[in-house]
Amino acid sequence: MNATVAVIMGSDSDLPKMQRGIDLLSEFNIKTEVKIVSAHRTPEMMIRFAKNAHKKGIKVIIAAAGGAAHLPGMVASVTPLPVIGVPISVTKLDGMDALLSIAQMPAGVPVATMAVDNSANAALMAARILGVKSKVTFNKVVDYQKKLKVKVDNMNKKLKKNKKKK
Amino acid sequence: MNATVAVIMGSDSDLPKMQRGIDLLSEFNIKTEVKIVSAHRTPEMMIRFAKNAHKKGIKVIIAAAGGAAHLPGMVASVTPLPVIGVPISVTKLDGMDALLSIAQMPAGVPVATMAVDNSANAALMAARILGVKSKVTFNKVVDYQKKLKVKVDNMNKKLKKNKKKK
Amino acid sequence: MNATVAVIMGSDSDLPKMQRGIDLLSEFNIKTEVKIVSAHRTPEMMIRFAKNAHKKGIKVIIAAAGGAAHLPGMVASVTPLPVIGVPISVTKLDGMDALLSIAQMPAGVPVATMAVDNSANAALMAARILGVKSKVTFNKVVDYQKKLKVKVDNMNKKLKKNKKKK
Amino acid sequence: MNATVAVIMGSDSDLPKMQRGIDLLSEFNIKTEVKIVSAHRTPEMMIRFAKNAHKKGIKVIIAAAGGAAHLPGMVASVTPLPVIGVPISVTKLDGMDALLSIAQMPAGVPVATMAVDNSANAALMAARILGVKSKVTFNKVVDYQKKLKVKVDNMNKKLKKNKKKK
Amino acid sequence: MNATVAVIMGSDSDLPKMQRGIDLLSEFNIKTEVKIVSAHRTPEMMIRFAKNAHKKGIKVIIAAAGGAAHLPGMVASVTPLPVIGVPISVTKLDGMDALLSIAQMPAGVPVATMAVDNSANAALMAARILGVKSKVTFNKVVDYQKKLKVKVDNMNKKLKKNKKKK
Amino acid sequence: MNATVAVIMGSDSDLPKMQRGIDLLSEFNIKTEVKIVSAHRTPEMMIRFAKNAHKKGIKVIIAAAGGAAHLPGMVASVTPLPVIGVPISVTKLDGMDALLSIAQMPAGVPVATMAVDNSANAALMAARILGVKSKVTFNKVVDYQKKLKVKVDNMNKKLKKNKKKK
Amino acid sequence: MNATVAVIMGSDSDLPKMQRGIDLLSEFNIKTEVKIVSAHRTPEMMIRFAKNAHKKGIKVIIAAAGGAAHLPGMVASVTPLPVIGVPISVTKLDGMDALLSIAQMPAGVPVATMAVDNSANAALMAARILGVKSKVTFNKVVDYQKKLKVKVDNMNKKLKKNKKKK
Amino acid sequence: MNATVAVIMGSDSDLPKMQRGIDLLSEFNIKTEVKIVSAHRTPEMMIRFAKNAHKKGIKVIIAAAGGAAHLPGMVASVTPLPVIGVPISVTKLDGMDALLSIAQMPAGVPVATMAVDNSANAALMAARILGVKSKVTFNKVVDYQKKLKVKVDNMNKKLKKNKKKK
Repeated sequence: MNATVAVIMGSDSDLPKMQRGIDLLSEFNIKTEVKIVSAHRTPEMMIRFAKNAHKKGIKVIIAAAGGAAHLPGMVASVTPLPVIGVPISVTKLDGMDALLSIAQMPAGVPVATMAVDNSANAALMAARILGVKSKVTFNKVVDYQKKLKVKVDNMNKKLKKNKKKK
Repeated sequence: MNATVAVIMGSDSDLPKMQRGIDLLSEFNIKTEVKIVSAHRTPEMMIRFAKNAHKKGIKVIIAAAGGAAHLPGMVASVTPLPVIGVPISVTKLDGMDALLSIAQMPAGVPVATMAVDNSANAALMAARILGVKSKVTFNKVVDYQKKLKVKVDNMNKKLKKNKKKK
Repeated sequence: MNATVAVIMGSDSDLPKMQRGIDLLSEFNIKTEVKIVSAHRTPEMMIRFAKNAHKKGIKVIIAAAGGAAHLPGMVASVTPLPVIGVPISVTKLDGMDALLSIAQMPAGVPVATMAVDNSANAALMAARILGVKSKVTFNKVVDYQKKLKVKVDNMNKKLKKNKKKK
Repeated sequence: MNATVAVIMGSDSDLPKMQRGIDLLSEFNIKTEVKIVSAHRTPEMMIRFAKNAHKKGIKVIIAAAGGAAHLPGMVASVTPLPVIGVPISVTKLDGMDALLSIAQMPAGVPVATMAVDNSANAALMAARILGVKSKVTFNKVVDYQKKLKVKVDNMNKKLKKNKKKK
Repeated sequence: MNATVAVIMGSDSDLPKMQRGIDLLSEFNIKTEVKIVSAHRTPEMMIRFAKNAHKKGIKVIIAAAGGAAHLPGMVASVTPLPVIGVPISVTKLDGMDALLSIAQMPAGVPVATMAVDNSANAALMAARILGVKSKVTFNKVVDYQKKLKVKVDNMNKKLKKNKKKK
Repeated sequence: MNATVAVIMGSDSDLPKMQRGIDLLSEFNIKTEVKIVSAHRTPEMMIRFAKNAHKKGIKVIIAAAGGAAHLPGMVASVTPLPVIGVPISVTKLDGMDALLSIAQMPAGVPVATMAVDNSANAALMAARILGVKSKVTFNKVVDYQKKLKVKVDNMNKKLKKNKKKK
Repeated sequence: MNATVAVIMGSDSDLPKMQRGIDLLSEFNIKTEVKIVSAHRTPEMMIRFAKNAHKKGIKVIIAAAGGAAHLPGMVASVTPLPVIGVPISVTKLDGMDALLSIAQMPAGVPVATMAVDNSANAALMAARILGVKSKVTFNKVVDYQKKLKVKVDNMNKKLKKNKKKK
Repeated sequence: MNATVAVIMGSDSDLPKMQRGIDLLSEFNIKTEVKIVSAHRTPEMMIRFAKNAHKKGIKVIIAAAGGAAHLPGMVASVTPLPVIGVPISVTKLDGMDALLSIAQMPAGVPVATMAVDNSANAALMAARILGVKSKVTFNKVVDYQKKLKVKVDNMNKKLKKNKKKK
């Protein structure tokens, strides 16, 4: 079976920051392809990849990039698929450069920009997008939101317990 | 027939900046509902709206907001649908406040952030998302990308013509 | 006896940065309730909490949040109580995102924004607000200000002593 | 009868931006004193004013300032009253300088910082603070919040009417 | 005769800001080709253009771009020629987005970044680069620098004259 | 003998960053008084200090402050002496807050702003100011500038030596 | 008689923004020389000027510059006189570039940085520096500070009059 | 044989950050001269150096600087050679100050600005510039670009191997 979501990044040094998102996609049972694709070092391979992604069954592309961070925008200019961009903090400017380079796309070529280093939200956005088509994935998003509430409940229980101890 | 995309904003003063996106959705033949929903002035109506959107057939929510810009993130925290956020430049800080308030969402609640004031890209991102499900919309995205190229061709023709005149 | 001040935050990971403020409220003998309330993970519980706070005797709400930092503004949109917001530095943008997300509220819904990570000032602002009603708390604020002066005096004495030693 | 809220600013050139707040205080029936007090041009008068404000019956001080914007913080260092700071955009840096100069107060001396140029919220924060003591003012805040909702309702009605016309 | 310098930009709306640079190249007698090439709207044409530029005799490429501003960096990733990037101020962020998107290129793919909107310096940098090979162009750069001094001399003469008049 | 330069700061925690400047003043044989004076914790003592400084023989005041950083500006508003401000990086905003709070003074009350944490330059600026009156200090500034050149010469010698070794 | 203060700037286009400072120097009866000196267009003339300034009787140099703004720092590296830098807002970055370029000087070469476009404060800082030597100038600074207070008094009188009229 | 590229910096403390660029120049077989030249500590030596560089056979100057970062711009104002500027992160402002001080040069004096701390790109830009004249260097740039692609290929191979292991 082919992947539904592609997670691409310019270098394997970005992988640790993307892992949480990759794990979440796996939790959502979304088949994922992880690949190093660099806008600056492999521009032609990137264009080939982006042009053919939808033909291979890819439905959503998650692209991570730091600094000048051209990967998400360039991929979005070639593919008709929704592209999610994750700004990575790799330079001294702490991701502000990547955030602006990804978010400030010109009218015509949209990139769904996430918070700096936030691969988890990229995965969740991919799940929400796939949920437009798949009832199964939609329900998993609903369940995930419920679990967020449970986490907060547990924090409050722990807080109360600690207070009583004092 | 019900709307597929909801375009919401905190005040009708944001409408002029959102119009280009609304027009694009209409060009893409995507049925759209435009509504004033304010995170700060109508928090409970906002939650009601966001909670029920998918039950009414809405597939994607576009939320525009300026300044502290809580609308997109709050809507995303209630709905399981994909939410696209458009930072609007309404304060002296020229949209940088809205951009950070929308983009820097915590892990768990994703918002697809667009460029400041860029409602066109919000519409195009909605179209790409719907294209995951609808072949018709997918093909319209492909056609739109082709038209972008034609525009550039025409600019180059005009440029050459002007040069010859000199 | 019920609490007069509520200190809320989106996650217990913010607790260490809020502790100094919680301790100061205790020094001022102000009964405080500490609770995890998340705008993004528990939006409905947040609204319920904010809507009912004043009915339980709460007079001031201190809300801490990082990143997109919607909690203080959302709470302020539901409650008629004064809300004090503390931007927490949790992202790579070092609290600048939270500062703008909390401070740049639209006209109609005020949040009393403090410095990044400065829970102490949130507590002192709560004390000043309560001092409007309570002469006891007002006098404690006056005493606290005197103690600040004594601290500076002691620093100068220490400085002189060190100088003589040389 | 003496004023309950003092609205001070460094120069009468800030008055137009503060007028909306002054009008709101008047709508809330809060007796207000407006005065030019400059941290930099009249430091001693400022200290005298701040030191004596509470003796004259002032309960809340609203201080507006642009650029280096020392007025709110300096007043807060002398008075035990709650001080609300309004950053004014008067320099080429568009209020970012004033926002940081007012918000980033050191632990010990709190200032309730509002959005850039947002005198309306300063007035509403003053009303919320006074509402801690006065049931009448508290109810006015509740009414004001209801009116915000009505405004949004009216915008939606207008939107629908315009749509039908087309 | 073929062009030695290519001046490319994503849209003809950038042309007015690039004109001063184009005129300067003409003053330096450097044969120039002006062309609309868009990273986002014509990614494949851009790659083709960049890949073949040096084969047509182009020695330096000047690329102007605003917002996410990917053009200079993408061209630099395909061509082995020196690429000069001019950040254009087209968004509400006043060129800061374009400056970071162009300057913060990753190690491996250099772009010579100029000041925001400063097409004149792009032309002068191209002239200096060509001066490495051509003694004629080198001498023109030397002459240009002399003229800058004469301009300052003339300003001082005018200043003195105005002073005497008083 | 009385001090010629006063070095003041809001807390003795700023002392380590100011030490290099204090040492340089001592190297220049300039009698210096170091004192903790806080704009926010001891506003009246600060005014007294600033008002009387010139009567005690002080000629230049160096004031260090972080965050909202009101000390240099407030002192300058009371004294007719030249005031040099040193922004200290104590908050998460890394001194950008202090830099703007000190530099952006309104017309009428000048503060000579130095680089963030740069107490050395504050001392050297004090020496240059005193050099306007004292030929001895003026000559020491000249000597200091010569020593800067020697340092660079030595670096180049070391560089050459290291190269030969290879 | 020779000038005591030199006011230099890179282009006569900066003159309108410097005029207020030049006028203030004249009000203070300080003999002033105004000259166009460009760090970038006339580097050698700049060095000659800076090197000889003190020999001609100049005591203080005020240098205005925009953008990369090298003039104040370069002059300070050559002269032993106190140099006051005025960042001018000439680029799209609104003076933030010039402010950082002037303020962030390395240890060893101080520049007294003023607020963006604030030539008035440069003049007043020059007066304060000269007041270290001249009792006459010192007294003028004291008088000027008194006039600032009178201005505020007059604003308050006007405010009261307007209020009565209503 | 004389050097073709000069790599200069204000202090040997910048050397570690410049080393990668120096090594790359050596890999490209480009004869390089490394020298400490300070705009602020040795302004006259800097002018002498910059004025004579082209007479010694230097074709490109790489200048690194932090903070106010005047070195690249000042050198560019004296030499007719292409100057490449590398902003170094040495202050609390993390290189943003140096980036603006180098990039925002006024029209007339271009500096090819690189990313913060990115000496590798400075070297590669120098190689591209020299490639305009030398076919050998041009071919090395082409080879270098091919190696970048191989690196990405290897990362993908490693990625696949790791996946299979699981």
